[in-house]
Amino acid sequence: MDPLLLQVGVSEVASAVNFTWILVVSFLIFFMHAGFAMLEAGQVRSKNVANQLTKNLLTWSVGVMAFFLIGAGISSLVGGGGFAWTAGADPGSWASSWLYGAVFAMTAATIVSGAVAGRAKLRAYVTYTFLLAAIIYPVVTGITWSGAYFSQYLGTTFQDFAGGMIVHGMGGIAGLTAAYVLGPRIDRYNSDGSVNVIPGHSLTFAVLGTLILAFGWYGFNVGTAAIFTSGESGMLFNGAVLGRVALTTTLAMAMGAIGAGTVALAKTGKVDTLYVANGLLAGLVGITAIPNVASWWGAIVVGALAGAQLPIVFGFVEKTLKIDDVCAVFPVHGSAGVLGTLAYPFVAAGGFAGVNAVITQVAGVLVITVWTVITTGLVFGVLKALGQARVSETHEREGLDIAEHGVESYPEFSLGDDATMTDGGQTYKTDGGREIDGGDDE
Amino acid sequence: MDPLLLQVGVSEVASAVNFTWILVVSFLIFFMHAGFAMLEAGQVRSKNVANQLTKNLLTWSVGVMAFFLIGAGISSLVGGGGFAWTAGADPGSWASSWLYGAVFAMTAATIVSGAVAGRAKLRAYVTYTFLLAAIIYPVVTGITWSGAYFSQYLGTTFQDFAGGMIVHGMGGIAGLTAAYVLGPRIDRYNSDGSVNVIPGHSLTFAVLGTLILAFGWYGFNVGTAAIFTSGESGMLFNGAVLGRVALTTTLAMAMGAIGAGTVALAKTGKVDTLYVANGLLAGLVGITAIPNVASWWGAIVVGALAGAQLPIVFGFVEKTLKIDDVCAVFPVHGSAGVLGTLAYPFVAAGGFAGVNAVITQVAGVLVITVWTVITTGLVFGVLKALGQARVSETHEREGLDIAEHGVESYPEFSLGDDATMTDGGQTYKTDGGREIDGGDDE
Amino acid sequence: MDPLLLQVGVSEVASAVNFTWILVVSFLIFFMHAGFAMLEAGQVRSKNVANQLTKNLLTWSVGVMAFFLIGAGISSLVGGGGFAWTAGADPGSWASSWLYGAVFAMTAATIVSGAVAGRAKLRAYVTYTFLLAAIIYPVVTGITWSGAYFSQYLGTTFQDFAGGMIVHGMGGIAGLTAAYVLGPRIDRYNSDGSVNVIPGHSLTFAVLGTLILAFGWYGFNVGTAAIFTSGESGMLFNGAVLGRVALTTTLAMAMGAIGAGTVALAKTGKVDTLYVANGLLAGLVGITAIPNVASWWGAIVVGALAGAQLPIVFGFVEKTLKIDDVCAVFPVHGSAGVLGTLAYPFVAAGGFAGVNAVITQVAGVLVITVWTVITTGLVFGVLKALGQARVSETHEREGLDIAEHGVESYPEFSLGDDATMTDGGQTYKTDGGREIDGGDDE
Repeated sequence: MDPLLLQVGVSEVASAVNFTWILVVSFLIFFMHAGFAMLEAGQVRSKNVANQLTKNLLTWSVGVMAFFLIGAGISSLVGGGGFAWTAGADPGSWASSWLYGAVFAMTAATIVSGAVAGRAKLRAYVTYTFLLAAIIYPVVTGITWSGAYFSQYLGTTFQDFAGGMIVHGMGGIAGLTAAYVLGPRIDRYNSDGSVNVIPGHSLTFAVLGTLILAFGWYGFNVGTAAIFTSGESGMLFNGAVLGRVALTTTLAMAMGAIGAGTVALAKTGKVDTLYVANGLLAGLVGITAIPNVASWWGAIVVGALAGAQLPIVFGFVEKTLKIDDVCAVFPVHGSAGVLGTLAYPFVAAGGFAGVNAVITQVAGVLVITVWTVITTGLVFGVLKALGQARVSETHEREGLDIAEHGVESYPEFSLGDDATMTDGGQTYKTDGGREIDGGDDE
Repeated sequence: MDPLLLQVGVSEVASAVNFTWILVVSFLIFFMHAGFAMLEAGQVRSKNVANQLTKNLLTWSVGVMAFFLIGAGISSLVGGGGFAWTAGADPGSWASSWLYGAVFAMTAATIVSGAVAGRAKLRAYVTYTFLLAAIIYPVVTGITWSGAYFSQYLGTTFQDFAGGMIVHGMGGIAGLTAAYVLGPRIDRYNSDGSVNVIPGHSLTFAVLGTLILAFGWYGFNVGTAAIFTSGESGMLFNGAVLGRVALTTTLAMAMGAIGAGTVALAKTGKVDTLYVANGLLAGLVGITAIPNVASWWGAIVVGALAGAQLPIVFGFVEKTLKIDDVCAVFPVHGSAGVLGTLAYPFVAAGGFAGVNAVITQVAGVLVITVWTVITTGLVFGVLKALGQARVSETHEREGLDIAEHGVESYPEFSLGDDATMTDGGQTYKTDGGREIDGGDDE
Repeated sequence: MDPLLLQVGVSEVASAVNFTWILVVSFLIFFMHAGFAMLEAGQVRSKNVANQLTKNLLTWSVGVMAFFLIGAGISSLVGGGGFAWTAGADPGSWASSWLYGAVFAMTAATIVSGAVAGRAKLRAYVTYTFLLAAIIYPVVTGITWSGAYFSQYLGTTFQDFAGGMIVHGMGGIAGLTAAYVLGPRIDRYNSDGSVNVIPGHSLTFAVLGTLILAFGWYGFNVGTAAIFTSGESGMLFNGAVLGRVALTTTLAMAMGAIGAGTVALAKTGKVDTLYVANGLLAGLVGITAIPNVASWWGAIVVGALAGAQLPIVFGFVEKTLKIDDVCAVFPVHGSAGVLGTLAYPFVAAGGFAGVNAVITQVAGVLVITVWTVITTGLVFGVLKALGQARVSETHEREGLDIAEHGVESYPEFSLGDDATMTDGGQTYKTDGGREIDGGDDE
């Protein structure tokens, strides 16, 4: 045989293109951890920065081991394919299937750290992360992507292309649940029920994180579409789907920022930077369940609504529910993910997707929500009962960086007196915040 | 038909490789927004950081909507192809054509925000961004990439491979024009005409932005070369062009940093960090029009000149023109882009490209410059006449973060007294800067 | 001939996929410079940040020119292929061979800057970088990747897939050597031999750098595996190797963070953030020589050991050797790289690789170590003898940013009094550090 002769044929080259694409987008999605780390670090007090960064590093490290040893197998088990242990799988699938699944799983996990910032014990968070990566998230993918339970019982497939509900909705709801169980940071609420704002220490890191996340999101959404897909009569180039996902992801992202900025402007007369940034992310979350099937105008509508709901839902969680969701993970990932998932039948490119699709989407959202709330509540509830969920008041006031990690994040910079901060000329207590008078500025 | 049989043939796989490449480089170019955000945020005062970040977020968000709804159609209209509305186009082209065009358009738009930092009203900037993305930039691409006007009238094609003039030159010239119309920041110049330096708040963010931009630039330049190109007798693998672009981009980047650093060293005896960083970018801008046709030594020459001109042109703009181009966008993007575009005939890999090429390059630069100056001057001139271009003196002194966004970027960190800063032991006014004595250190 | 007919065949498309992959991973590896810049900047004092950033920018700029003009040719010369000057090579190879080699070379170079931070003269560092890129590193690749000396003499090939020893081990050993010759920073050690800790100025930048590096590392390791490889009977899809590299890289990274964090917890009762971050990197370094041949459990073992040795080796270097390796480059890149390289025969996927493999690995490590120590010691020794290695005591106390670059990195932020810092309530001298009492917290 001619040594220059290729053994690969066209089909193998096409498969290799798919494989290469999966590798590249897996790297992009992994890079979202840098985005989450910066976004969350920027939104916490300087005394809790190292804690937030450590949580992000350990989310990936502990989570990926749990997902390798247990989680990926659980997902296939729940999905009906038996416990397929990753270690015994075909090496090629370690990239095309396992790593690709792992980067989605760790995204769900890391969202929670933003909600419980400033008071969760490191050991509590790491325990929860392990369980999320090993069991809680794999069950969610087991009943959706890995299984076909919804189509089995309801006739229509649960539409969640890249994890708008399965990853982001789940993570946002888990975060809200955990924040509720833990209770708010000290001085977040006054005895009369009024709210103190505790601003993050660096908007620059928060916006950097936002843009890193948006970069990775192209991998998250567009990367979920293969370059070639297997149709009934062979493999087909998937250009139309790839193009649609690229467009709808872009439009929803843009409208999320515009929507949140507009509502903030309407409510306070100013364009709050953090709302614009988080709105951009909410727009991305909103479209993530449906970028392959939404019409271009549907992407605009979903993005705009996902952005616009952010300041409103954030205010509701903060003032009415009185849950201290530090990095706004519920309005960004939770409610925006639910919104986009439920919107599917109404904004589909081919017109209204039918009543069965509405029922399936509602059922999927409900099942995932109930499972997530129960399991997350259980884990943090047990940890709380054992006195292991939350640091002591002394440690919380001192900051988790010293208490849990023995470091200072910025040892050279002079910080305001431990008891006061200034914001716009107003001076207020550091461990709580100034009283705000009806406005919604963060 | 065998279900395992591929319907795709070799040509479709080759097209899919091109398509995948365009997706990946579009993501890289999008990520340059994180680079611009960090580079600009680092170069402004801490009181204006949130404003700069918000402008960057809205440049993308507002601009991409304008480019979707109007701009891309205008480009094809001006180019002679009629108003091709993106919403009605083939979904595949939403990735391979629209998104790919959008990331270049938004690069041009975001450059301007660095020039007008610290005093432009948010609404003025957003209005200009909308018009740039909808009309000003699309007309430039319409007469060049989308049309063939120069080859029609002059016999030779205007050589601008990846937007050295069309994107960066245009953005840099627009920035200079806008900064001229707005006037300098308060206390930037003393009554005797002497200059006060107003240093940015974080070199670390500025250098981070530089390196993110350089990363994205590989997408910008190398990504403009397709993997396969259609030749007269079929599609051909484009390895030689890809290799040349990768090499010349790398060499020009390196020499830009070395050139700027050397000139700074010669003038002040020290290697100014910001000049090295901006010089690296100027080297990249310099080669962007010609990476596919420049010789390796041409890339070295163009990069070195683009870097070396940076401190000189910056000083000219600052001291002679007395225009307050805050982030040095004209020397980095404007003059460097013009330099590389005009250098083409003299540094081409195949030897001198001929007098007609010289005339075409000059004509292209002139037409784009005149169009950009007139339209940008008009927009900011009208806004200025309406009193909507610039914030009030009170707001400017207070900082745009509080005035326009109601936030502080670093609420916990102690800043110098509002009236004084220290730099190298010297104390000077914050809203102006210390008097400098003939040196060019930024 | 039909104009739509493709001239490319399956083999050319497969080659183009390889070529495209090399481009993408080269960009990712280039981006690691942003990671190194942030990691190192975060770990130095605020008065030396601009110096560290400038060194990183010039490492790339000066190094890449040296590697273009000299280094790549030296590598092929030493490897037995004659001096193949890059400028005269086939343009396609400028991407597939030269740039790809350059990004690895510059990684080795930039590691050194972290070890010599805070006291090396800029001119000394730049001189060394030039020599490293032109000669020192190319000789290392000449006797390994470009040549076949080990297999020639010992019968087995030196196993170093992506530069665990050739790039990282070499860089880490060079850094340790340079730091030894330069001597420690002022006040790093007290007259009684006790150690003062000098904490870096920003953990956030350090962790950001860590995660950027991890992102780029996927390019570094997985990108070293081609999509298609030439086998004896033609080209073959390389999925199994790609999958193994992706898995082992991920597992070793995770275990590195867990290993270092666990040892830190055991020693001090706290999970030091910087140890977790640097442990994650040490895990990556550990696997870099062997990701294509290690078993999954081998990756776990190597990653865990590479992480666990970090706090121990760091303490040994700091307390016993009394070498001031500022950014811990020896424990992260040096000892971790050696560990993984030597571990190969014992953790190979196919079982024990044989005594000859053990000998070859030891020989390779020894040869590279001896060459690196001698050449690095010589260069810095000569510079030191000429009085050009280290800045004056005045400049060191003042900070290199003012002395060497004429800038302040954070001109607006109030820093602690020049003579004191606080860390966890303890006050200590800025140019040295507080006395520590047996603990190993950084």
